[in-house]
Parts: sequence; C-alpha cells; structure tokens
Amino acid sequence: MHPFDTATLLEPLSDGHFRGHTSPAYANMVGPFGGVTAACVLQAALQHPARQGDPVALTVNFAAALADGDFELVARPLRTNRSTQHWSVELSQGGEIAASGSAVFALRRETWSAPEAAPPADIPPPDALVRSPVFGRPAWTRHYDMRFVRGPMPEVFDAAHQADSHSEVWTRDEPPRPLDFVSLAALCDSFFPRIFVRRRELAPIGTVSLTTYFHADAALLAAQGARHVLGTARALNFRNGYFDQSAEVWGDDRQLLASSHQIVYYRA
Amino acid sequence: MHPFDTATLLEPLSDGHFRGHTSPAYANMVGPFGGVTAACVLQAALQHPARQGDPVALTVNFAAALADGDFELVARPLRTNRSTQHWSVELSQGGEIAASGSAVFALRRETWSAPEAAPPADIPPPDALVRSPVFGRPAWTRHYDMRFVRGPMPEVFDAAHQADSHSEVWTRDEPPRPLDFVSLAALCDSFFPRIFVRRRELAPIGTVSLTTYFHADAALLAAQGARHVLGTARALNFRNGYFDQSAEVWGDDRQLLASSHQIVYYRA
Repeated sequence: MHPFDTATLLEPLSDGHFRGHTSPAYANMVGPFGGVTAACVLQAALQHPARQGDPVALTVNFAAALADGDFELVARPLRTNRSTQHWSVELSQGGEIAASGSAVFALRRETWSAPEAAPPADIPPPDALVRSPVFGRPAWTRHYDMRFVRGPMPEVFDAAHQADSHSEVWTRDEPPRPLDFVSLAALCDSFFPRIFVRRRELAPIGTVSLTTYFHADAALLAAQGARHVLGTARALNFRNGYFDQSAEVWGDDRQLLASSHQIVYYRA
Repeated sequence: MHPFDTATLLEPLSDGHFRGHTSPAYANMVGPFGGVTAACVLQAALQHPARQGDPVALTVNFAAALADGDFELVARPLRTNRSTQHWSVELSQGGEIAASGSAVFALRRETWSAPEAAPPADIPPPDALVRSPVFGRPAWTRHYDMRFVRGPMPEVFDAAHQADSHSEVWTRDEPPRPLDFVSLAALCDSFFPRIFVRRRELAPIGTVSLTTYFHADAALLAAQGARHVLGTARALNFRNGYFDQSAEVWGDDRQLLASSHQIVYYRA
C-alpha cells in the first residue's frame, strides 16, 4: 500500500463519521503535514454514501496542531442540487475541533473551455533537474519527489532576503502514485511556506486556511498518471503576522489541474 | 442609513442565531448580489457575543439562490485559541441551507512586513475616469461607483472573444461609505464574472465558492476611509462548466487590503 493511501485511509463509522490516523510517513515539524489533513477532509466527503459528483472546491481551516494518533471526521451533505453538492466536514481529536472544512462537488459536462493563464515557458523537464534534498527535513518531504527550477526551500538560512518568493517546481508522489483528487489536494499544500523562500530565516508558521479549486476532472487526472506535475507558487503580501500564497498545478501537457490559495500565520 | 448597512443589518435572535432580509437595493439578476450575502455571513460572526479579533479569512459557498425576504443565519465558534478564532456559519431560508461559510479571526500584532506584489503602475486617478454605466444593469451595480481603467463589463454583447479577462477598476460604495471588513467582503465580489469580459456573450453563471483574505487590519481600513480602492481581477482557466477568478483590492496608498478568489459555474 502506498504511504499516502495509508495516511488518508478512513475507517467508516456510522452516519457520515470516519476515523483516521496520523501517519509517521507524513509527519511535519509539529503534527502531520497539513496537505494530508486536507486530503483526509476531502476523503471523508468523497467516501460518504450520499456523495454525488467530483470536487471542484475545497476549503480547510486549521484550528490546532494534531497530536499523533487517531482523529475523527464527520462529513455532512448540506445541500444537493441537480449538478452540485455542498459539504461541511469537521475533524476533531479528543472531543475538540482541530480542523474544519467545506467542499463543493459537481457533475461536470463538456462546455466551451479555454485557458487564460499559461504555465511558465522553457522549463527543463524533470529528468534534467536534481531532486530536492530531504535530509534534515520533516518526514513528509521524503514522500514527494520535488525538482526545483526556481525558488527552492533554502538549504542554508542565511537571512539573505530575496526580492520575491516565486517558485517553479516539478513534483510527484514518492514512490510514484497515479494522481487523483485526494493526492492533488495534498500536493497543493506541498509548496513550502513562502516566507522561508523570501527571507531565508526560520520562523514559526502555520497555515490557517487553505482553498483549492480543481480545474481537472477525473479523466484529466487519469491522463496525468504518476508523472511529475509543474507547480508555481508566490505570495502577494506579508503583513503583521499573516501572509498569503497562491499556487498553480499544471499537467505536463500544460493543462491547469488545480489552483490553490492559503493564508499563513507567522511570527517574525 | 446607508443602503449597505440596511442590506447587512442582522437581528440577533438567541444563541448565535440572526435574522436578515434581502434588500432590493442589492438585487442581482436572480436573488441578491452574492457579495452582500457573503457580507451577511461575515456579519453574523462579527456580531456574535463570543467574537475575538478581526477577520483574516472568509469562505462562503453559495448553495442556492436566495428568494426575496427573510433568511436565518447561525454562527458557531468552532475553536478559540490565544490569537485565532475559527467560525462556521450557515445561512438558511425556509429550513433549507442556501449558503454556508467559515471565517478565521485573529488578534494581529506588528511584525516584520513586506509587500511582494504591487498594484499596476501609471493608473489614472478615479477623477480622470468616467463612472461605469448602471442603466439596464442589476440594482446592486447602482450602489458601487466603478471607474474602469481596463476590462469593463461589456456594454454590448457582440461575442467578440477577448485574449484575456483582466480588469483594473477604481471602486467605492455609492453613496460613499467608510470601508470596513463587511463592506470589503462585499466589494471583493463586485468584479463582474470574468467569462462576460472574456467572451462578451451572456451565459447563465453563479459563484459556487468565494474566499477572501483580509491583509488589512482595522486601522488600515480606517485610513482608507470612503475613497475609491483599486481592484484588479483575472481568471486562470475556463473548463467544462467552471472558471476561477482572482482579485486584489489595493488602497489608494498602494497597500494591499484584500485578495479574493472564487470559482464560478457557467453554462456555455
């Protein structure tokens, strides 16, 4: 079993309730990697017997660090329309809410479609780049193969402030695993906190709220398979304890698979 | 009383419940302008007696069009930490959920701060531009003074597809009203659907999910007062019934006040 599937495995209890378990493979500095927590929130709605359609939007608010061990999820379908379904999900541990989320699912049909943004041009293929080091980094980074074109996580925190926090990075699950909505939800949180790229100083940080839009449907994800996707990430603003970051995830056929936004607490 | 305050006036009932009313001043094509609905969701958490801090993140999912008349809101504080507070809000009408939302509030402190993005340069001041026409448009547009630098709502739907959907627009409440979190939440949804700007064809559309990050604290909003803010908006991708759009709202001192993202259903 792939470690990501172990980390996002939910045991169905009754009536939209599920039990999950933190996974040492995806441990972060404090608690689990937030991307896997977000993936579990999505998983609860996906595995609910009332589910209709595929995800188009997911928001997860992180209220507290999870302790290692079991946690409980409850997914509630708030409203089911002809082509959309609205979900609320709460994740708790020891009777206290640690994360909450919402998702919108949809039955999609073929329509007029057009890109507006394009992925960066002239990017070397993943094979031409070296894998980002994982030694000395939290466990979860060992389960992504990241190859940076630009803006890597600094290897040395030398406090040399950079002009921007832009990154371009080829990423896939390690070991390779075919992309699906759950793994894409996690991958959208794999972009290192922009404040580290920008300032090259360590600081306490924590994502407060994460929103992901799924532009891809299941067929487009299946076509991408287990190959590297191209991620681009940047911030707009760092101000009085909070910064935002936005990321796009592009398939290797230059189609936009997901766009993702978050706001992150920092102490600096 | 300013029509925006009338539209977002909530009557407290018991235990985090509130009653609101749709307002003809902010009517849209079908139901009320979504920005005012989002503002009411935020207002419920802001007026809850347990409130701590100011908004940093707001997500609103629109599940159904509201009918004209009363609606009910219930705001629940999910978790209160030392400096953050997590909210869940549900808006219902006739016993069915029409919108749901979440908010994160925070007590902010002065820290190292730095912009990364900048507003567009060489933008003429609002006085040098003409106000966007409101004749023949939904009522809510009469309550914003919008002055487009680029990418206005088309006056003629001639199906002349454009290369992009980028807009730059000075906006303020009409009549002028000092900016606060609630009015900023609404203003973040005042950017016309990008598909109209891009295709210049009418099509049924509806915002499915809207997320706003507040970069400004109360002091920065107070400093902006009732003057025009500069909005920039664009899409990344239109695909099989859903497109995204992102917007930034800049103060006239070039500070980022809010960034906002949404995913929108369309039929085309």
